[in-house]
Amino acid sequence: MALNLEEYIASIPGFPKEGILFRDVTPILQNPEAYKEVTKLLADYAKKVGATAIAGPESRGFWFGCPVAQELGLKFIPVRKPGKLPRETISEKYDLEYGSNEVCMHKDAVTKGDKVLIIDDLLATGGTAQASAKMVERLGGEVVGCAFVIELFGNGMDGRGTLGKYDVYSILRMSDN
Amino acid sequence: MALNLEEYIASIPGFPKEGILFRDVTPILQNPEAYKEVTKLLADYAKKVGATAIAGPESRGFWFGCPVAQELGLKFIPVRKPGKLPRETISEKYDLEYGSNEVCMHKDAVTKGDKVLIIDDLLATGGTAQASAKMVERLGGEVVGCAFVIELFGNGMDGRGTLGKYDVYSILRMSDN
Repeated sequence: MALNLEEYIASIPGFPKEGILFRDVTPILQNPEAYKEVTKLLADYAKKVGATAIAGPESRGFWFGCPVAQELGLKFIPVRKPGKLPRETISEKYDLEYGSNEVCMHKDAVTKGDKVLIIDDLLATGGTAQASAKMVERLGGEVVGCAFVIELFGNGMDGRGTLGKYDVYSILRMSDN
Repeated sequence: MALNLEEYIASIPGFPKEGILFRDVTPILQNPEAYKEVTKLLADYAKKVGATAIAGPESRGFWFGCPVAQELGLKFIPVRKPGKLPRETISEKYDLEYGSNEVCMHKDAVTKGDKVLIIDDLLATGGTAQASAKMVERLGGEVVGCAFVIELFGNGMDGRGTLGKYDVYSILRMSDN
């Protein structure tokens, strides 16, 4: 019987600041069956879109992107904050749900022709995924999709709209409030 | 034939600051065979020490700890910097090779009797692993080992000494300079 994965999402009002209802995926990591199921669903999607590489933003994207890359024998492309990747990088700035941010990618992490799936825990505004996708494309890769454990809706949140040109998959849809 | 994993470590002088020779594991992530081999070696060690849970410090510990947890069907315990984990946490302060730091763990991430293996990319001073181990023990878990992709030696570096009471495994030993 399939797990009800929504039971493994904790909802924390007021984190990281007032007015935010934070959707916390760490209970998934605490339950091996739930963690395995999430990895399987994301890996199935990766196969469907023909991904040859997985990219994941720091840090929660690593929790889900790395196991999927390993499961499918694909390389993993870490997307990190400035100052963290030691070799030559490119970067993109974007707006977050709360604040703004900049992400980087090693220049040699993407090879021309790579079919890259971007994996993260949460689709909110879509800014992180969009910035990651732009870097993949600047380096000659193709973005074959963006996959998330949770997609937020409500409060005018339209991550799927922001990522309009890409195929978007989410395991769970949850309200932003 | 076994891969020479040392070929997948990049060495960057002067990162993140002058005088540091940074050992960068990201080339491993870029090569699925190398990434798989590292996961297998860490998973073999996890089985040997009888781990029932894997803990990994943010962020590079996630690259290796998460796939090992998935491979073995174990839970994953994220060790994070302050302000990142949204539920009730405990924390430990420690000294780094460059600077000082504090790490946190969700209180419910460890269950009494868990046999926890701590996995990270690099053993330098051993501070991060030691702080992680202390939190596991405060929460009633047992630390069955600490495993690293790289163990640094030289420059008076004695991570293994710091972690003296724990079993330590590293895939590669590399000089700190």
